[in-house]
Amino acid sequence: MLKVGVVGATGYAGAELVRILAGHPAAELTVLTSRQYAGVKFDEIYPSMAGIVGLVCEELAIDQVCGQADFIFVALPHKLPMALVPEILKHGKRVIDLSADFRFKNVAAYEAAYQPHSAQELLAQTVYGLSEIYFEEIQSAMLVGNPGCYPTSVLLPLIPLLQKDLLEVDSLIADSKSGVSGAGRSPVLTTHFCEVNESYKPYKVAVHRHAPEMEEILSREAGQPVRITFVPHLVPMTRGMLTTIYAKPRLGLSAADISDCLAAFYSGRPFVRLRPEGKPPDTLHVRGTNYCDLGFKFDARNNRVILMSAIDNLVKGAAGQAVQNMNIMLGLDETTGLAQVPFPV
Amino acid sequence: MLKVGVVGATGYAGAELVRILAGHPAAELTVLTSRQYAGVKFDEIYPSMAGIVGLVCEELAIDQVCGQADFIFVALPHKLPMALVPEILKHGKRVIDLSADFRFKNVAAYEAAYQPHSAQELLAQTVYGLSEIYFEEIQSAMLVGNPGCYPTSVLLPLIPLLQKDLLEVDSLIADSKSGVSGAGRSPVLTTHFCEVNESYKPYKVAVHRHAPEMEEILSREAGQPVRITFVPHLVPMTRGMLTTIYAKPRLGLSAADISDCLAAFYSGRPFVRLRPEGKPPDTLHVRGTNYCDLGFKFDARNNRVILMSAIDNLVKGAAGQAVQNMNIMLGLDETTGLAQVPFPV
Amino acid sequence: MLKVGVVGATGYAGAELVRILAGHPAAELTVLTSRQYAGVKFDEIYPSMAGIVGLVCEELAIDQVCGQADFIFVALPHKLPMALVPEILKHGKRVIDLSADFRFKNVAAYEAAYQPHSAQELLAQTVYGLSEIYFEEIQSAMLVGNPGCYPTSVLLPLIPLLQKDLLEVDSLIADSKSGVSGAGRSPVLTTHFCEVNESYKPYKVAVHRHAPEMEEILSREAGQPVRITFVPHLVPMTRGMLTTIYAKPRLGLSAADISDCLAAFYSGRPFVRLRPEGKPPDTLHVRGTNYCDLGFKFDARNNRVILMSAIDNLVKGAAGQAVQNMNIMLGLDETTGLAQVPFPV
Amino acid sequence: MLKVGVVGATGYAGAELVRILAGHPAAELTVLTSRQYAGVKFDEIYPSMAGIVGLVCEELAIDQVCGQADFIFVALPHKLPMALVPEILKHGKRVIDLSADFRFKNVAAYEAAYQPHSAQELLAQTVYGLSEIYFEEIQSAMLVGNPGCYPTSVLLPLIPLLQKDLLEVDSLIADSKSGVSGAGRSPVLTTHFCEVNESYKPYKVAVHRHAPEMEEILSREAGQPVRITFVPHLVPMTRGMLTTIYAKPRLGLSAADISDCLAAFYSGRPFVRLRPEGKPPDTLHVRGTNYCDLGFKFDARNNRVILMSAIDNLVKGAAGQAVQNMNIMLGLDETTGLAQVPFPV
Repeated sequence: MLKVGVVGATGYAGAELVRILAGHPAAELTVLTSRQYAGVKFDEIYPSMAGIVGLVCEELAIDQVCGQADFIFVALPHKLPMALVPEILKHGKRVIDLSADFRFKNVAAYEAAYQPHSAQELLAQTVYGLSEIYFEEIQSAMLVGNPGCYPTSVLLPLIPLLQKDLLEVDSLIADSKSGVSGAGRSPVLTTHFCEVNESYKPYKVAVHRHAPEMEEILSREAGQPVRITFVPHLVPMTRGMLTTIYAKPRLGLSAADISDCLAAFYSGRPFVRLRPEGKPPDTLHVRGTNYCDLGFKFDARNNRVILMSAIDNLVKGAAGQAVQNMNIMLGLDETTGLAQVPFPV
Repeated sequence: MLKVGVVGATGYAGAELVRILAGHPAAELTVLTSRQYAGVKFDEIYPSMAGIVGLVCEELAIDQVCGQADFIFVALPHKLPMALVPEILKHGKRVIDLSADFRFKNVAAYEAAYQPHSAQELLAQTVYGLSEIYFEEIQSAMLVGNPGCYPTSVLLPLIPLLQKDLLEVDSLIADSKSGVSGAGRSPVLTTHFCEVNESYKPYKVAVHRHAPEMEEILSREAGQPVRITFVPHLVPMTRGMLTTIYAKPRLGLSAADISDCLAAFYSGRPFVRLRPEGKPPDTLHVRGTNYCDLGFKFDARNNRVILMSAIDNLVKGAAGQAVQNMNIMLGLDETTGLAQVPFPV
Repeated sequence: MLKVGVVGATGYAGAELVRILAGHPAAELTVLTSRQYAGVKFDEIYPSMAGIVGLVCEELAIDQVCGQADFIFVALPHKLPMALVPEILKHGKRVIDLSADFRFKNVAAYEAAYQPHSAQELLAQTVYGLSEIYFEEIQSAMLVGNPGCYPTSVLLPLIPLLQKDLLEVDSLIADSKSGVSGAGRSPVLTTHFCEVNESYKPYKVAVHRHAPEMEEILSREAGQPVRITFVPHLVPMTRGMLTTIYAKPRLGLSAADISDCLAAFYSGRPFVRLRPEGKPPDTLHVRGTNYCDLGFKFDARNNRVILMSAIDNLVKGAAGQAVQNMNIMLGLDETTGLAQVPFPV
Repeated sequence: MLKVGVVGATGYAGAELVRILAGHPAAELTVLTSRQYAGVKFDEIYPSMAGIVGLVCEELAIDQVCGQADFIFVALPHKLPMALVPEILKHGKRVIDLSADFRFKNVAAYEAAYQPHSAQELLAQTVYGLSEIYFEEIQSAMLVGNPGCYPTSVLLPLIPLLQKDLLEVDSLIADSKSGVSGAGRSPVLTTHFCEVNESYKPYKVAVHRHAPEMEEILSREAGQPVRITFVPHLVPMTRGMLTTIYAKPRLGLSAADISDCLAAFYSGRPFVRLRPEGKPPDTLHVRGTNYCDLGFKFDARNNRVILMSAIDNLVKGAAGQAVQNMNIMLGLDETTGLAQVPFPV
């Protein structure tokens, strides 16, 4: 059994890591840290875990964490991991960081969106943890920067088509919608039940920090600079993310070309499911699972390609993909511990 | 007091008409019809109305309705109104029809989307009831075709800019999201609570019948053929519709140009409120009201204009706009009976 | 027009007062205070109010408030009103306080549930603002202590039966359920969307502070000491409160006795509606309105009376009843400004 | 691998059985029947199951089902199983029926609540599948009548106390609240999203058919006739059931007595978790799992015991408990295939 630690275990992404790892046949949770809840039993914070997780949350102390665990997940807000991850690596432990800190190769893009980067020397060796795309590199990585939820939902449908140069790269628009758990567990007015219920709204319109993350990867995979208009919206539901992408096809492209490209690319990949044309994906179909369901529609009337993806923002959009990456790093089947059968409702 | 009848009073749009008209100072509800509930007191179907509406639903009989009311709202599924409305007009009564039957001038477009039109001779004199745009024509209309909810949410932000030729007309995309009441009251699997809750999904992607309705009006107002890619989505909430529109600006357009154009166009119009740039509209802000809140963002990085609108699909998207049109037809202040102060939550 | 001020205008109860008063034909909002938002336009905090309420929130200064308004609503957390209300009364202004501070005659009960009372000298002249019960006293009151939402939902069904001595007074149980807006606007973990959605839970089981408030009034109206087991629960909805009451009937009581008693008591009272036996009330039927819908069932098999009430916790449970009380104090029809027609959904 | 069939696989209880059995390490789904969807792939009805369940739904034919499966779950509306189950038993197959048809020993009680019973000869050998209570009998049963969701939530907290004669048996009240999935998948007005959202309401007050089911078991376990006042309510959530029980304690009972009794009774039982006094259970803590969380409060002021239970109505209230029973019947660890780690949110 691999001894695993979660740094920042009480936020929603951290707790979802705990949820998945508690059921993982090859992993044993040995240490959970939480600044806010140090000294408190994890199952007092999450009573759902009573009888399942007996650990007490600890103050964060890298030496102690590395003494107790051989594999570390860091689920802290960006900026904090920059300081911690280098120390963990010095202990020779492999790390998956769920923040933005190790997602970029382009330091300038990171710094424009976030803040000065204090661990730039690590970026060259860091692997972007989009499991289906960077499987090979992830296998041997010491440090994986786990993708954002929005980028995961945008990149999985687009990359196959951009690699084959099937889309006009200056035509990309992603209209994304997220459940509220994506906003984290800290109570703020915008996550108050009464402000969310019966509310649907865009936010950070065309200025969200996940856009440069998407653009770095899209450009890399397209082999040319790619930009995207990205508009996130908040949906009154706990889990789920659906992205609707609009793009112009290259001249002469057909619906079958798109379908074939996506089907070929994801053939044999256990977590990406292609929906038949005209049957769009639905967040309810992937709730609680690591699946990414893809749909598409060729709008011949307007010569536009419409791509759609549905994920659970806490699973494939965060903790699930992180565990998928851990499996890949360890040489396990990538579905290990992630074979949650989805609920009918 | 004007005697008013509602044909098809027990669907959600019909019941919302009843709600608004029950509080309208210049109107008196005198007859409600319902095929399904003929003979049943309206407040047994909607117990919220106990003590407010004492009418019993009647079988539909045009002579009887026209004998009891001087102004008729028809809130039936499309196809039925084609047969009824000509009869009502023969009685000399003014009519607002909430179905698609009298929204189109272009018969071919209607027939392609719906079915053969059996009352084409009326279309020339019919007015499209988008109150802010066709105020003049509505004043003297005998028959108003009340707009669809999606078209209302798409047309109000776009028309001012298209009239001024500020957008590339082949670049229009509308990504719309609707609450469940838009699907009507008849219980079907897609409106089952458990299928909607925690679900977010596109449907009728690029093939929804509201697109040709939009295109007829957009083309008319732009003075040239306009097409639009339209993708509706279902949101787990009862009321509310938010549309996010993506368009390419004409060369040299600035954020201020858009803002100025919208502000000038809707200056003095009581039901259209312009949000400051960067503060998007929210369905919660207009819930239960006849407002249409507009927002916009100029995505200079990608040279795209993003327009956003929020309405209550049952009010400005249906019954509220219908009553606004009635007010205009009667020469009343257009806000009469519609001055519902919005709820904080 | 009566000049009205709201102290504490930005919490949910305060904002709901603003909502109702903005549409009140005999009142004019002249001053709103908010510690947190002093200097901010009210419609920036609640964008739904754009174009309707133009006031800027002010720091609380009693002299200033009393200089601008002739009638004051205080919507602050308990303990603060004890210090403020005496000052307002010194200015000769009439006050309705929505906190617990002026609901009790029994100081010891108040102090056991809350904290030492610093304005006890006012309690003798204070009137408990349960409009249907204390209509006479409210008319001439200078200071009304507006009831809690739970007590309103418990007292309205019980008082008629207790006045007639129809129930065993040691048998009372109230199982109440509230929407989340009752917990206030301050973001805390228990109002986080993700903690509320798909959650139903009891809280403060048999130790909630509204129980002594109920018991004081129940005892007064029964003419003997009455105690009640009170268990509140939180429901995943924004507005609404439903209470299910269980009681033992006095020997020989029939279903008709209960029905007759309730019907006679509330005959002619505009805001209390009696549902037919076997057709329970529903929070959806009263949403956004000042109604209290009452239902009952005689469980002959077990010789138990089951009473049910539904209110909107923010309206009849707070701001609506407060305005109803203002109307009564001013000699207006008690429904003035409260004739909101309920929504079908 | 045990070959397992589900008769009535496309309702919510049936689909939840499919969900659990698809992940069960000792079971293999070999046949699914559905009248409505015969000939349709299960994953077209439930797209969440794409890639997991490849079966096509079949018309119900007992010979065929019994030819393909060695263990049969019947998830049909009551009345239908009475005709089918005897045939299945004739094929020598073990059966768990999820309807009411085989829950009663008292035929008269069944017939009063449902309809004439056509397979009464089977009732003597039938075992009531409340796993924690009838573990022994279930082991050797050929036919298990799986409990209703409400009875499960009422019986688990009450039985330990009644067995020890700690409560006054004429004092029992159960105020229960259910998520909407308990109403089944067939679309009816009462499960329409817009009728449920922002709605909380009682239904079938003191006349619900689950009361006689509870009373038969309560009487059996108490060793004397027991009656209960039972009031179910509908909560706007998909999954979850919470019951609040009120009872009078026998003279001299203390909080510790209750706590000790429950703790001793459920010691070592994997699916019943006792919450600390004052920390009530919450449906969110058990969502998607087979847990029953129990809480209690001794209301000393009123000399009342308050018991609370939370289950997922589709799991411990239906399909989960059914699989738990299958495990017991097969001599497997009762948690096999049911070790779903609960979600944090």
